[in-house]
Amino acid sequence: MIEKLISNIKRTGAPIVVGLDPMLSLIPSSMKDTAFKEYGETLKGAGEIVWQYNKRIIDAIYDLIPAVKLQIAMYEQFGLPGLYAFQQTVDYSREKGLVVIGDVKRGDIGSTSAAYATAHLGKVQVGSKRFSVFNEDFATVNPYFGIDGIKPFLDVCKEEKKGIFVLVKTSNPSSGDFQDQVVEGKPLYEKVGEEVAKWGNCHMGHSYSYIGAVVGATYPEMGRALRSIMPKAYLLVPGYGAQGAQGKDLVPFFDKDGLGALINSSRGIIGAYQQEKYSCFGEQNFEEASRQAVVDMREDIKSVIG
Amino acid sequence: MIEKLISNIKRTGAPIVVGLDPMLSLIPSSMKDTAFKEYGETLKGAGEIVWQYNKRIIDAIYDLIPAVKLQIAMYEQFGLPGLYAFQQTVDYSREKGLVVIGDVKRGDIGSTSAAYATAHLGKVQVGSKRFSVFNEDFATVNPYFGIDGIKPFLDVCKEEKKGIFVLVKTSNPSSGDFQDQVVEGKPLYEKVGEEVAKWGNCHMGHSYSYIGAVVGATYPEMGRALRSIMPKAYLLVPGYGAQGAQGKDLVPFFDKDGLGALINSSRGIIGAYQQEKYSCFGEQNFEEASRQAVVDMREDIKSVIG
Repeated sequence: MIEKLISNIKRTGAPIVVGLDPMLSLIPSSMKDTAFKEYGETLKGAGEIVWQYNKRIIDAIYDLIPAVKLQIAMYEQFGLPGLYAFQQTVDYSREKGLVVIGDVKRGDIGSTSAAYATAHLGKVQVGSKRFSVFNEDFATVNPYFGIDGIKPFLDVCKEEKKGIFVLVKTSNPSSGDFQDQVVEGKPLYEKVGEEVAKWGNCHMGHSYSYIGAVVGATYPEMGRALRSIMPKAYLLVPGYGAQGAQGKDLVPFFDKDGLGALINSSRGIIGAYQQEKYSCFGEQNFEEASRQAVVDMREDIKSVIG
Repeated sequence: MIEKLISNIKRTGAPIVVGLDPMLSLIPSSMKDTAFKEYGETLKGAGEIVWQYNKRIIDAIYDLIPAVKLQIAMYEQFGLPGLYAFQQTVDYSREKGLVVIGDVKRGDIGSTSAAYATAHLGKVQVGSKRFSVFNEDFATVNPYFGIDGIKPFLDVCKEEKKGIFVLVKTSNPSSGDFQDQVVEGKPLYEKVGEEVAKWGNCHMGHSYSYIGAVVGATYPEMGRALRSIMPKAYLLVPGYGAQGAQGKDLVPFFDKDGLGALINSSRGIIGAYQQEKYSCFGEQNFEEASRQAVVDMREDIKSVIG
């Protein structure tokens, strides 16, 4: 799947992943009103709105981008109807040829991580049958448990030809509370990065490993260090746009050939119509605003990585 | 909710939480066969089996124990039908007066953690209405993101009078990979424990905070240190039984009055009928084996904490 991701990036010329993290506050009122009339102000109504919104955005931008990332929390908050919208969105994105990253940040002791790996990347056995469950292509994984918590994901990735991105240095302001603590003369995130590089060496695609890492765009100098510590890891880079990072901050995450990093934007794309810059589209044409925001993001990145 | 937990513990005399983590391999074949006949070998069939199994166990043991812990991964692996079984089990356990711990180990950047906190402990706004979603009483939370990732849970806990258990030192063999790394002259898990103690001081019940910590029974000496670093935190202690810890290992986790720790057993209770010791019950009476295993566990703990 890392090969499909890279091939999609080359085809589109856009090392961009769009975060489909549809908070209701991002969704046009008229769309919400229509769905509430049909389904009521219910969890089912919310799930339906989220799915319809996602579908219109995917239809508008799928030819421009290699991948989408679904933050499962935004679906989980609407319970089962929300998770149904998650499943519909995963399936539809895959139909459209997009690589799907499940931003689930799961991680636990071995037997439990195995169940999460099954849920998101693998197949579950029920009697004599096996079923794909949520069936993303990649999942994000939390490293706090050490290798026991990662290993079941690696096994499923090998079997299913899928991949993971391990949290190394996250984009949020307090990520340093524990991640920046100095161990063995270096920050913990570098230690985690070294381990990810080791794990990745045994799980290689052609030029990159299918064990990647999450490194926040909000910390470009740390990104530079981590790029060199994990030379074979694809970096999933959140924090561009709404969280504050700009095009110029992204340079250190890329390799010289413009590969090696996948930059995420969520609200900056899916809620573009709410920005002054794109207000001319109007909320009725929110997906056109999203398309323009993708084009602008691609140009912004091109201008710095050439 | 920490008060209800403590009151339940005092009433039952059992500082025990039963992990309802129903892998299909634990469930009697006859029960599976019956459900597969009715629902087919499908995810729906699996969800139905899990729910029926849980219900029989809850009915057999609810008067003996203060709380149950649901490992959501074991439900998530069966997709939406699995998560429906999760929801049914949470609701039924609460009806029976049990405190419900959602072992979800979520954690993310602030806005995302807010969505997880809503999903598991809070209420979500849909139009003019608000809904409880999965509605557990406590959730487990991963600290890798630092305070940003914890704060939204604290806010929801304060509003809803609920609680969390933050992962500090996990029970698995490789938990030391990162958690035991030395920072500022002490292991990282102690540093995390110090932060949990600080956060907890602002979120107190009568005698304990509603910000607790997960500390593995498999590391009793570390448990002793963490008990004193977090004097007001209730400790959720996995690792007893199937993972190898025994009654005598549990002493350091408790305060002198026998409070302060809640010991988890999952497979050791729900799969008791598969053990030689309880094989006389037979698989038809699996719930009676579970009941006896709870009684035995309570006695084992009583014999060491008096």
